[in-house]
Amino acid sequence: MRLIHSVAELRAALRGETETAFVPTMGNLHAGHIALAEQAKQAGRPVVASIFVNPLQFGASEDFEHYPRTLDADCAQLAAVGTDIVFAPSAAEMYPEPQTFQVLPPLAGELCGAQRPGHFQGVATVVLKLFNIVQPRYAVFGKKDYQQLFILKGLARQFNLPIQIVEGETVRAEDGLALSSRNAYLSPAERAEAPRLHAVLRAAAAQLGSTDFAQIEAQATATLQVHGWAVDYVAVRSRATLLPPQGEETNLVVLAAARLGATRLIDNIEAVSNRV
Amino acid sequence: MRLIHSVAELRAALRGETETAFVPTMGNLHAGHIALAEQAKQAGRPVVASIFVNPLQFGASEDFEHYPRTLDADCAQLAAVGTDIVFAPSAAEMYPEPQTFQVLPPLAGELCGAQRPGHFQGVATVVLKLFNIVQPRYAVFGKKDYQQLFILKGLARQFNLPIQIVEGETVRAEDGLALSSRNAYLSPAERAEAPRLHAVLRAAAAQLGSTDFAQIEAQATATLQVHGWAVDYVAVRSRATLLPPQGEETNLVVLAAARLGATRLIDNIEAVSNRV
Repeated sequence: MRLIHSVAELRAALRGETETAFVPTMGNLHAGHIALAEQAKQAGRPVVASIFVNPLQFGASEDFEHYPRTLDADCAQLAAVGTDIVFAPSAAEMYPEPQTFQVLPPLAGELCGAQRPGHFQGVATVVLKLFNIVQPRYAVFGKKDYQQLFILKGLARQFNLPIQIVEGETVRAEDGLALSSRNAYLSPAERAEAPRLHAVLRAAAAQLGSTDFAQIEAQATATLQVHGWAVDYVAVRSRATLLPPQGEETNLVVLAAARLGATRLIDNIEAVSNRV
Repeated sequence: MRLIHSVAELRAALRGETETAFVPTMGNLHAGHIALAEQAKQAGRPVVASIFVNPLQFGASEDFEHYPRTLDADCAQLAAVGTDIVFAPSAAEMYPEPQTFQVLPPLAGELCGAQRPGHFQGVATVVLKLFNIVQPRYAVFGKKDYQQLFILKGLARQFNLPIQIVEGETVRAEDGLALSSRNAYLSPAERAEAPRLHAVLRAAAAQLGSTDFAQIEAQATATLQVHGWAVDYVAVRSRATLLPPQGEETNLVVLAAARLGATRLIDNIEAVSNRV
């Protein structure tokens, strides 16, 4: 496996490749990321993973400075599953000049975007840059970051990128907690409480046929609050638009973001409404 | 020469090409466009020209509906200079869904952007889409649309597009008027007056060493107004930033936009200041 830090060296390494499969990450990899790398290997070769903690997508009050950086361990994990190239650029390599061009995505103020102004603009901008550097045929993103996945599918489609977006299922701990780099911030007591987020979403999804959505959202929110969570949102949305479901839409997703202490966790579950 | 209307057919025609040279246009071609196509042929092959009147870059009060569409004549001119492919998509082919993803470029509210809100956002968005469809190695744009050229050079650089932007010199009528599709809107009397725009810019550029820039701009503006022009701006700018020159910057450009009757004309001239 090659570790490459410069755009020029990566371009040279990939010259002539037409079936590259790409896994963009911010590093601090866990089994969810590794599953994406394995999925990439099924899609195409060579497999390129990027590790870049993108300053553009962090708010001023967020954890950019303290986001865990574990390059050596990340590379060992990626090598073990047959990743061909790890691209780990510096911020100066990605942004040699101030990034005055940005991608303005839709839904940037919805759901997680409401609490994280500029976040999805930063994500869309860096992913477009990485796509243009790697020029993959396939790019793999996990469903855990559901709104991100939705936005990046739209980015590829609406900007006519010749890239197929591959979706990775969320990998969970045995107790249901979705794997996330931010789980490491949880205290033991918070870690014991954390699986409730998934449990509450499962319960909400099971009710999609019988109750109105606002009540489902309110009930899930109340359950979390009772157990000490600060809830950013619980939302029943259309999978097609990520907006509140219209009329007879039945392919839905229930999404939530909530904080335990200082740690913000997100999760979601796709479900079919059997409304009649 | 092939005329192609669909994205899928164009992608198939260009599969495996690595040295494509691309000339994006809105059609209604004149000798300035044809010079760009000839320049493209020197840069790489195959030469692809696009003809697409992009609704995104027209304001509500602008001439989108009436912009001249002359596909047959355009194709004949392009074929005569060895263009290999003309890509002429419909609006539905370029925008099969509402374009909710946009590129937000810098300087979008400066110069021509001040009078044309959304214009450069629409230009940057459609050019990014066309770049991703054509995947050229070279793309040729004329200096007549100086701000557009500046923005698209930044787009390619900041989004890491593997595309070299080639600059085409402005082609002029014998009396100095820059060729433009919009010249066809001029009455005979307006056409006789129109070369003054270039003459005034030449006079302004000749003064760059001796006078302060605000006075140069004011004098040029006054000269045009005396002769019946409605002046949007005359501006001395840095070629490096397209902002007002700082300190000892000497590589400058003088740009202007002004209207004769209902017709808005733009022009510019690069010049070196000999300020000491």
